[in-house]
Amino acid sequence: MADMAESPVDTRPPPLDLTHHLSRATRNRHASSMKAFYKYFAIPGIGQLAGGLPNNYYFPFDTLEAKVARPERWTPTPNRPIDPPATAAEDACDRLSALKIGVQSSPLNQPQDAIAVPHTSQQPNPVKKIDLSTALQYGTAQGYPPLYYFIRQFTRDNMHPNCPYQGGPEVILTNGNTDGFAKTLLALTNEWSEEKDWVRDKEGLLVEEFCYMNAVQGGEPRGLNIAPVGMDDEGMRAEGPGGLREVLENWDESKGKRPHLMYTVTMGQNPTSGVLSLARRRAIYALCSKYDIIIVEDDPYWYLQFPSSTAVNTTTHLSPGSSSFNPAIQVLANGEPRPTEWKSSGFPFLDSLVPSYVSVDTDGRVIRLDTFSKTIAPGCRLGWITAQPELIERILRITETSTQQPSGFVQSLIAELILGPDHTGLSAPPTASKGKGKGGLQDGQGWKAAGWVRWLEGLRGNYERRMQKMSAILDAGRFHVKTGRRNSLDDGEDEWSVVEKTQMYSFDWPVGGMFIWLKVHFDTHPLYHHYAKTGSAANKNEGLMRLAHALWVFWTTSPYLVLVSPGGIFSPTEAIRNAEGWKFFRLCFAAIDEEELGATSRRLAEGVDAFWRVRDVRVIEKLLADDEAGVSARGGEAEGLVGMVGPC
Amino acid sequence: MADMAESPVDTRPPPLDLTHHLSRATRNRHASSMKAFYKYFAIPGIGQLAGGLPNNYYFPFDTLEAKVARPERWTPTPNRPIDPPATAAEDACDRLSALKIGVQSSPLNQPQDAIAVPHTSQQPNPVKKIDLSTALQYGTAQGYPPLYYFIRQFTRDNMHPNCPYQGGPEVILTNGNTDGFAKTLLALTNEWSEEKDWVRDKEGLLVEEFCYMNAVQGGEPRGLNIAPVGMDDEGMRAEGPGGLREVLENWDESKGKRPHLMYTVTMGQNPTSGVLSLARRRAIYALCSKYDIIIVEDDPYWYLQFPSSTAVNTTTHLSPGSSSFNPAIQVLANGEPRPTEWKSSGFPFLDSLVPSYVSVDTDGRVIRLDTFSKTIAPGCRLGWITAQPELIERILRITETSTQQPSGFVQSLIAELILGPDHTGLSAPPTASKGKGKGGLQDGQGWKAAGWVRWLEGLRGNYERRMQKMSAILDAGRFHVKTGRRNSLDDGEDEWSVVEKTQMYSFDWPVGGMFIWLKVHFDTHPLYHHYAKTGSAANKNEGLMRLAHALWVFWTTSPYLVLVSPGGIFSPTEAIRNAEGWKFFRLCFAAIDEEELGATSRRLAEGVDAFWRVRDVRVIEKLLADDEAGVSARGGEAEGLVGMVGPC
Repeated sequence: MADMAESPVDTRPPPLDLTHHLSRATRNRHASSMKAFYKYFAIPGIGQLAGGLPNNYYFPFDTLEAKVARPERWTPTPNRPIDPPATAAEDACDRLSALKIGVQSSPLNQPQDAIAVPHTSQQPNPVKKIDLSTALQYGTAQGYPPLYYFIRQFTRDNMHPNCPYQGGPEVILTNGNTDGFAKTLLALTNEWSEEKDWVRDKEGLLVEEFCYMNAVQGGEPRGLNIAPVGMDDEGMRAEGPGGLREVLENWDESKGKRPHLMYTVTMGQNPTSGVLSLARRRAIYALCSKYDIIIVEDDPYWYLQFPSSTAVNTTTHLSPGSSSFNPAIQVLANGEPRPTEWKSSGFPFLDSLVPSYVSVDTDGRVIRLDTFSKTIAPGCRLGWITAQPELIERILRITETSTQQPSGFVQSLIAELILGPDHTGLSAPPTASKGKGKGGLQDGQGWKAAGWVRWLEGLRGNYERRMQKMSAILDAGRFHVKTGRRNSLDDGEDEWSVVEKTQMYSFDWPVGGMFIWLKVHFDTHPLYHHYAKTGSAANKNEGLMRLAHALWVFWTTSPYLVLVSPGGIFSPTEAIRNAEGWKFFRLCFAAIDEEELGATSRRLAEGVDAFWRVRDVRVIEKLLADDEAGVSARGGEAEGLVGMVGPC
Repeated sequence: MADMAESPVDTRPPPLDLTHHLSRATRNRHASSMKAFYKYFAIPGIGQLAGGLPNNYYFPFDTLEAKVARPERWTPTPNRPIDPPATAAEDACDRLSALKIGVQSSPLNQPQDAIAVPHTSQQPNPVKKIDLSTALQYGTAQGYPPLYYFIRQFTRDNMHPNCPYQGGPEVILTNGNTDGFAKTLLALTNEWSEEKDWVRDKEGLLVEEFCYMNAVQGGEPRGLNIAPVGMDDEGMRAEGPGGLREVLENWDESKGKRPHLMYTVTMGQNPTSGVLSLARRRAIYALCSKYDIIIVEDDPYWYLQFPSSTAVNTTTHLSPGSSSFNPAIQVLANGEPRPTEWKSSGFPFLDSLVPSYVSVDTDGRVIRLDTFSKTIAPGCRLGWITAQPELIERILRITETSTQQPSGFVQSLIAELILGPDHTGLSAPPTASKGKGKGGLQDGQGWKAAGWVRWLEGLRGNYERRMQKMSAILDAGRFHVKTGRRNSLDDGEDEWSVVEKTQMYSFDWPVGGMFIWLKVHFDTHPLYHHYAKTGSAANKNEGLMRLAHALWVFWTTSPYLVLVSPGGIFSPTEAIRNAEGWKFFRLCFAAIDEEELGATSRRLAEGVDAFWRVRDVRVIEKLLADDEAGVSARGGEAEGLVGMVGPC
């Protein structure tokens, strides 16, 4: 398959040979023995009795169809602009509330088109053929050909046009990023066991100080050291105490090998919502290159970068100043300049985003995980890995003997949505449809790359609006107002006068992703000193952690009724959980119905305020006791084996 | 969730604790830390800011729809009956050809119904709710609740009503059986490496002498000994030379631990197509119980058991004698009596099938793999594991940090097809539909269990008919007729007279599955003695393997043009490949278009016959040389990284 987008002469240096990072089991993998026979498949008129396939006429699904959105369903940033800028955050909230017009109404009331995947298309080219007779049959482990080629082209030409190594990256489809990371762990780490292996053989995984724990939960059972690296508002730090340089330079060999693998979320970090700048990427990459570390970049939120927050975080109030839509300005969503010598992605929106580590990956040591979970739906269980071809080939071998291929139901429906029937490429003009398929546009063609980018812009716009709404409400409620003297006025009303304003919590407006990372200032709580005294030798913060848990429980009680994620579940080690994790809570502004977003945010802020009025230890203790009783009353697992999955 | 089908008092003994079989990494797995919060999800009116989910209104898919078959689309066994029985196989072929009426016409011309999965159902019960707002969101690792409960109930009540341990088996959904086996290997085997581990720690995997190699390819990279067990026409043997008892009793500890894990395909074995009798199952199970072996039973073809072949194999010609449809007869599809004390599955068809190892699993040591690949379509990438709850729980933990859940696209479409909207169970009468969903029946209800069983019966009928057709043709062509004297007759025509009938190949009519396992009698080939002499010390059959390969190549040339799978790729060890594997070829009668089935089968038989007329070594050598030149001309992999997956 010729790659049209590539220039005739590729002067970039090739990626390094990094196969020494492969696990023993992965080195031992061989291509399927069936592979030797592919060339015979192409013999004209050959009677195929070799494969062990069922007959596609016996599939009970004759066609698949769907009603789908148009790419322009949602308004991009800045939508419902706050203009002129509000001077007080609460004003902005009211304004936002007033503007809440039907965004949460059923999408079925929005313009939609019907797509269709036919049973059998007459298209002879497998890259253009989208039908059930192929999509629901056994297929290729790298992905359903039309979808694989779309993803490959979009990844190479539009997402990472500036990948610095020769030939550019290869891709393989996965069943989502958790699957992608699981395969990456199998490919690049050896299992280690205390009972039989030397400590010197214990491998490690570098992670952010606060991180998405699924990665840790995947690595720990394999015996990996979990090595946290310090962070700031962008994400992982290269320098300073606890930064990557320090962690690597001072690595204590007595606890295992210096890690050769890093897991990182760099865009809308989960849970802290930072976006790692290009400058920081270069600094961290240089260290990884020096210490020969493979970077696994998991970025489900890459298109959710919020330029409005960059302004807000420096000015402390809403500002429409930032624009990511004027490519002449060459400013990235985080306010950083875009390198002028860089190729354009072809789309101003994509050019405006802080780019992936792939753009600085001169060695070919970046393994990037992408997913349709946040752009289409988590239930797709569909994503892809981007990396140098040598590493992708090893992951292909793992895929062949595990998931084999993502479900053809989702692969064919997304292929038809984006590409349309008998497509002639991602940007080519429509041709007469020969098949019976139908893509996501009114004329029966697919969305193509332009429609896909427009869809992402619309999603960014909507999540950014939600982020602003919750942030503004929380900003407005962050002070606890202590009142002093009480005066009885002539009209019988009481009057309270402010004697002290105490800040109960703080947070950065998210510059990316789906979360607010709330730091609660428990040291301003009236009972702080009481609980600060009740620590143990093993954990001096034991008492304060109980106070923090009491707030978490208090939120779940009436009238506050808010459930948030405690910082402990994003703390990769017990030390972090005990030292800092308990002060934080992660709030997701993405999932809740938009009608409830404002009220819930307000209840959250009011909950803290009410908690700050609690001055009696017995109230806290009763909250904790009641909660524990509730836990035992429910007797542990309510639903047997149920295992809820998803970014916790 | 109350299990209605269970009797109030379960007097069966509980399964054994077999957790000592778990791998170290699997023992180290812990439930997701999010789990502790489930109970708070249920608080009425709670504002959910805890989960990291996207908003379901931003999914571009508003509804999913499909045109689907009715359960009765295909005719069950015996369809197109050969009656009265043909006395010559060739007659039967002609008859079958004549009866070939449009079965391969587009399924779109058959009656079909439209199913629909709505965006949002108002159904409050998650087990009854089938909609995109739940199916396309993050979900539970055990499976989408409606589908999980269907599969669980069908598995327990209909497939294995006679599971002998208390509580019966639990299930978890997988992304197909290759995924299921990969997770089973992770759960039950420790990686072993020659460079650092003791030989005594090397674990092993018992497999059939000829087997589905994906299992071997999954186990070998982990350092497992592959331990083949002898077979007969049923499948794995318990007794005799090379049988399971001998392999275990004489296990040579110097090559590793005695295996604690068995991988077996017992119904329509791939590639030999045997069906393991109940008597044999009991014998093998007793040995596994004695030697503490976990049995992994991979049975994608379980419903494809062909009673007609049982008769054929003993009488050597077609017979309609066997009937699996009269439950009063209590005869299984393989002719064995069904234990009279056994509970009925509720369906004569299911009662007529040789049952799973689960039915004799008193210890709880059977892990069964089931898939929708052969009953709906391989592209589903959907299946399930059946085992005792303790083992399922460990596999759930592995699932949480790898595939998470099968794709919601396929889960919701299959759930809607089978269950229908707002279903009240698998056998309950239709109720008024409250949602906008629509199931696979004309009235909008789902197929239910009865429809599902009827669908399986229809598939069995069709695959059985195909099997008969190919078997009859091959039966007819198995003799090579050597001619002697040549007489010139008055009318100028030549006449040849038969001087010798040589059998070129033999096979059992498949009693299950999708394959014919053809043994070619190379010892009757004119050049046998020439090639028998050209072996090496390392492999005395080297020359004969070249002769066999030449036949394989010869088949792919005009006018024969048939591609089959050589026995070598089903040989789990080199020793088997060299000793016996080269004599066999696997023919799949399932995938090929029915119009081509007869002609292709005839070309296959004619190819052997023509090959038997080759008496010149140079012809053989030229075939092999041309083929090798073709291989190098094409330069190895034609499509880059393409990895075709599926049962090879």
